[in-house]
Amino acid sequence: MIKAAIVGGTGYTGVELMRILSRHPQVELALVTSRTDAGKAVAEVYPSLRGVVDLAFREPDVEALGDNDVVFFATPNGTAMHYARSLLDRGRVVIDLAADFRLRDPGLWQRWYGEPHACPELLEMAVYGLPEVNREQIKKARLIACPGCYPTAVQLGYLPLLHHRLIEVTGLIADCKSGVSGAGRSARLSSLMAETGEGLKAYSVPGHRHQPEICQGLQAMAGKAVELTFVPHLAPMIRGIHATLYARLQEEVDLQTLYEDHYRREPFVDVLPPGSHPDTVDVRGANRCQIAVHRPGDGRQVVVLAVIDNLVKGAAGQAVQNMNLVFGMPETQGLERAGLYP
Amino acid sequence: MIKAAIVGGTGYTGVELMRILSRHPQVELALVTSRTDAGKAVAEVYPSLRGVVDLAFREPDVEALGDNDVVFFATPNGTAMHYARSLLDRGRVVIDLAADFRLRDPGLWQRWYGEPHACPELLEMAVYGLPEVNREQIKKARLIACPGCYPTAVQLGYLPLLHHRLIEVTGLIADCKSGVSGAGRSARLSSLMAETGEGLKAYSVPGHRHQPEICQGLQAMAGKAVELTFVPHLAPMIRGIHATLYARLQEEVDLQTLYEDHYRREPFVDVLPPGSHPDTVDVRGANRCQIAVHRPGDGRQVVVLAVIDNLVKGAAGQAVQNMNLVFGMPETQGLERAGLYP
Amino acid sequence: MIKAAIVGGTGYTGVELMRILSRHPQVELALVTSRTDAGKAVAEVYPSLRGVVDLAFREPDVEALGDNDVVFFATPNGTAMHYARSLLDRGRVVIDLAADFRLRDPGLWQRWYGEPHACPELLEMAVYGLPEVNREQIKKARLIACPGCYPTAVQLGYLPLLHHRLIEVTGLIADCKSGVSGAGRSARLSSLMAETGEGLKAYSVPGHRHQPEICQGLQAMAGKAVELTFVPHLAPMIRGIHATLYARLQEEVDLQTLYEDHYRREPFVDVLPPGSHPDTVDVRGANRCQIAVHRPGDGRQVVVLAVIDNLVKGAAGQAVQNMNLVFGMPETQGLERAGLYP
Amino acid sequence: MIKAAIVGGTGYTGVELMRILSRHPQVELALVTSRTDAGKAVAEVYPSLRGVVDLAFREPDVEALGDNDVVFFATPNGTAMHYARSLLDRGRVVIDLAADFRLRDPGLWQRWYGEPHACPELLEMAVYGLPEVNREQIKKARLIACPGCYPTAVQLGYLPLLHHRLIEVTGLIADCKSGVSGAGRSARLSSLMAETGEGLKAYSVPGHRHQPEICQGLQAMAGKAVELTFVPHLAPMIRGIHATLYARLQEEVDLQTLYEDHYRREPFVDVLPPGSHPDTVDVRGANRCQIAVHRPGDGRQVVVLAVIDNLVKGAAGQAVQNMNLVFGMPETQGLERAGLYP
Repeated sequence: MIKAAIVGGTGYTGVELMRILSRHPQVELALVTSRTDAGKAVAEVYPSLRGVVDLAFREPDVEALGDNDVVFFATPNGTAMHYARSLLDRGRVVIDLAADFRLRDPGLWQRWYGEPHACPELLEMAVYGLPEVNREQIKKARLIACPGCYPTAVQLGYLPLLHHRLIEVTGLIADCKSGVSGAGRSARLSSLMAETGEGLKAYSVPGHRHQPEICQGLQAMAGKAVELTFVPHLAPMIRGIHATLYARLQEEVDLQTLYEDHYRREPFVDVLPPGSHPDTVDVRGANRCQIAVHRPGDGRQVVVLAVIDNLVKGAAGQAVQNMNLVFGMPETQGLERAGLYP
Repeated sequence: MIKAAIVGGTGYTGVELMRILSRHPQVELALVTSRTDAGKAVAEVYPSLRGVVDLAFREPDVEALGDNDVVFFATPNGTAMHYARSLLDRGRVVIDLAADFRLRDPGLWQRWYGEPHACPELLEMAVYGLPEVNREQIKKARLIACPGCYPTAVQLGYLPLLHHRLIEVTGLIADCKSGVSGAGRSARLSSLMAETGEGLKAYSVPGHRHQPEICQGLQAMAGKAVELTFVPHLAPMIRGIHATLYARLQEEVDLQTLYEDHYRREPFVDVLPPGSHPDTVDVRGANRCQIAVHRPGDGRQVVVLAVIDNLVKGAAGQAVQNMNLVFGMPETQGLERAGLYP
Repeated sequence: MIKAAIVGGTGYTGVELMRILSRHPQVELALVTSRTDAGKAVAEVYPSLRGVVDLAFREPDVEALGDNDVVFFATPNGTAMHYARSLLDRGRVVIDLAADFRLRDPGLWQRWYGEPHACPELLEMAVYGLPEVNREQIKKARLIACPGCYPTAVQLGYLPLLHHRLIEVTGLIADCKSGVSGAGRSARLSSLMAETGEGLKAYSVPGHRHQPEICQGLQAMAGKAVELTFVPHLAPMIRGIHATLYARLQEEVDLQTLYEDHYRREPFVDVLPPGSHPDTVDVRGANRCQIAVHRPGDGRQVVVLAVIDNLVKGAAGQAVQNMNLVFGMPETQGLERAGLYP
Repeated sequence: MIKAAIVGGTGYTGVELMRILSRHPQVELALVTSRTDAGKAVAEVYPSLRGVVDLAFREPDVEALGDNDVVFFATPNGTAMHYARSLLDRGRVVIDLAADFRLRDPGLWQRWYGEPHACPELLEMAVYGLPEVNREQIKKARLIACPGCYPTAVQLGYLPLLHHRLIEVTGLIADCKSGVSGAGRSARLSSLMAETGEGLKAYSVPGHRHQPEICQGLQAMAGKAVELTFVPHLAPMIRGIHATLYARLQEEVDLQTLYEDHYRREPFVDVLPPGSHPDTVDVRGANRCQIAVHRPGDGRQVVVLAVIDNLVKGAAGQAVQNMNLVFGMPETQGLERAGLYP
């Protein structure tokens, strides 16, 4: 059994990690921390976990965390970087669900996250935890940066096209729609149901933190710089990301076959039949990306539709998928595939 | 391994049964029927089940159904009663999620369901599948009538009070709120999102089919006739039932202790701490009833709050719980407890 | 033209007041205050009011407020009571949408609102602004306490029964469901869409501040003490209150005729035909209460269903209705009747 | 007073027309037809219109329709074209909210709507009712084709850029999100709340009927052929369209000034301040398009965000705006500007 700890268990990714780990056959969830709820039973804060998680939240403490084989950080950005060195020194595996180790360039990190990086020397050993791209590296990793929710959907959507150099790398457009849980479990006016329950709007059009992360990934796939316009939207639903991706073909290809071939052996990427329109509700609660690819009017314009659950394949599920790889367990373990429909 | 068939797999209870059975370690889902979708792959109709259920829908056929150990009917009312005799004769277990075998009095059935009962002689052998009341009978049953969604929540809420004869049996009021999946997966104006997405209303106040079913159950608990006013409401959410139950105490009792003691060994009934207010979202996707009991101002009026997921503890989950009992498997098998929050 | 000011214009009742007053033909909205948003244009905070309200929020100031014929308080509880005396001394009309002047007993106020009342001597001159009960008094009032949202729906629902002494006054039950805008426009975890968007729960069952207000009103109608159990629920919609009211008849009466006769001349109370089930969506945005009355199985139990928009007939619309009465304008002026459906 | 008739009053655009016309000071709504609800009172079908519209639905009949000055068709596609000739011969004004007269090319109509056009000879006299483009023609029109909901938002968003020839006309992308009322008031599985309430998906990516309509309009603005990819999405809300429009600048321009100047005198197009993100909820119930224009990273890529209420500026409100122009009334009459927020 692997002993696991979660730092920052009171956000939505934290509670989702608890839900998933609680039924993982080879993991014992041993410790969950929360500064705000320290001392309270997990089940008191989250009645959905009554009888499922019998721990109480504790203050985060490096010593106690260091007793675990793996430590997940479901914390705000800029937290894990203050703990990583100590835990790695103790021989532990660190899996960060926030942004601290996603960008390889500490200068870029500082620009987008507003403070200097606390341990730039660790960035080189950090592995970007997108198994469909980095599986072999992840297996050997000690420090994993789980991708953001938008970056997961966008990168999985573009991967076959960029990997095979089939599209122009300028003029890429990622028009993405997210459910409100993506904004986290914090008390903000803009996340109130009365504000968002019947509205839809774009946000951060001038620049969003996931933009440099996505570009870093797409560039690695393409082997050269890409130009991407990324427009996120807030949609009135709780979970789900729908990425609508646009690109221009530069050579002829059977797109359906390309996608099916590329993802044939991926357990968590599901290419839908020709003509499909994936729906976020079909992956709700599941660690799965469903993708369809279209070419309207058989022109040069490709439209890729990719959906994930932002809290699962976009966060907690993907973190567990990474853990499975690191510890040599079956990649799909604990990650049951059926979503909750309706 | 138990071989299982589902008749009527294209409704919400059917798809939920597939989701649950697909991860049950001792069940092989061998056959799913649907008149409307016969010939189509299950995963084509329900993309959430891609890679999870690899069957195609077939026309219902008694011969083929009779090859299974257990046959679930997730059909409209008035269907199972035409198949039950043949399947029982073949030695199979029949679990009906509709109303055909819930009422013990065929005259009452005819009054509320508008046609004569097709096999009144089977009503006596049918067991009402509410394990918290009938567990021992269920273990020996061959024909099980799963309770309706409202009746499950209302009966579990009143059970400790009636069982111990603590309340007046007149003037009972069950004010219930249901999500829209309770209306089923059929194309009706009144179930459109544009009609229901921002509205709440009562319905069937003059009389609802679940009323006689609830009364039959409450009377069995009380050992005498009860008088109940039952008012169902449609609430703008997908899953969930919230039952708010009112009764008047006729003797002093510590309600919290009463409820905790009564349900202490029940795996799927969870009495919340004093002062709690259960939320339907905390049981979403889980086979669980969460209950709180209040006595405002320490008066004679008791208020019981009980929540379930109408498709799980109110339908498909409870059906599997019954199956587990009939076949001597652990009662909780395949019924993982954590709901999907948020 | 009447000059009007709004104190506390950044909450939901404030913005709704602006929407309504902006199209009132005899009112000039001259001043809107907000401590948090002072200096900002109203239209900057509320883009829905661009081109409709051209004011900027100002700090509240008694001098400036005193230049208006009527001052609406759309503030938190415990605010208006600190301004009322000064404004009344200046000869202005004060209409409070909060609770400061609703309870006639200052001791009761202190018990439920946690601080001593600042001007108990004004309570006697305050008129409870429910026109269907107090129309004549309102016409002569200078200080009006607008009823709470739940109290409006519950009192209008019970009024014909209590006024005519037709029901038992013990064992009354008001099971009420509210949309989330009732919790106000403040950043709270419990009001996040991810928390409430797919859940329904009761709250404050041990005791809610609207309980003594409702009882005070019902007692005045009945001419004696009443015993009421009030259970509010939070439903996943933005606007709307649905009150389901239970009572026991103590003499025979034609309920439909009773209600139709009682409300025949009321412009904002609409008794639906026999057998109806009012829907909150049908009064959304309208200053209207729709009511249906049932007697299931022709027994002694009466079930009244009453719906309002909590921000209109439950707050801002009712406040304008009161203003119309005070200033001798047509009662319905500025209060167009059609709601926004769907 | 203008006498008005509505054909097909039982859909969402029909009921919205009734809501708007009922408070128009110069219109008498004299006749509303419905094949399905003929004989029923309007207020019986739509309780929100009780006391507002006192008509009963009648069977459609050319004679009776011909007694009105203006006849609105809120019917399915392919209906108005069978009535238009007779009504025009009687000297009446016909305003069609469906697609019958939107496309100038009857061959294109047949291709997208699946049947030959019934009166191709009328297409030339039909005026496309987008006042911001065709105001002068509309004033003289007798037969008006109201634009579709998507086409309204997309064309208003692109108009300043195309009119001034500032963008490349290839590679245009319109990524649009619509609320579910856009699918109409018909009983379809795909419009059930249980299906759509927590999901978001694209649809008709291979080709949507609004595509040729949009292209026809954009081409007229640009004076040459345009190449547009149009991807509509269904979002889990009732009303609203959010169009996210992409284009590439071909010369330098101050976009904010361009948009503000272009729309300065338009009563129903509202250009938001720099950096804004319009929200569909801010135009809910209002005949208004709110627009923001962005240029992320000051590159060549322009992102235009445009929101409307699909039932108002995208249908019924725009139809009334057209009527006002035709009959020489103030363009804004009866079209109050404040939306219903929250």
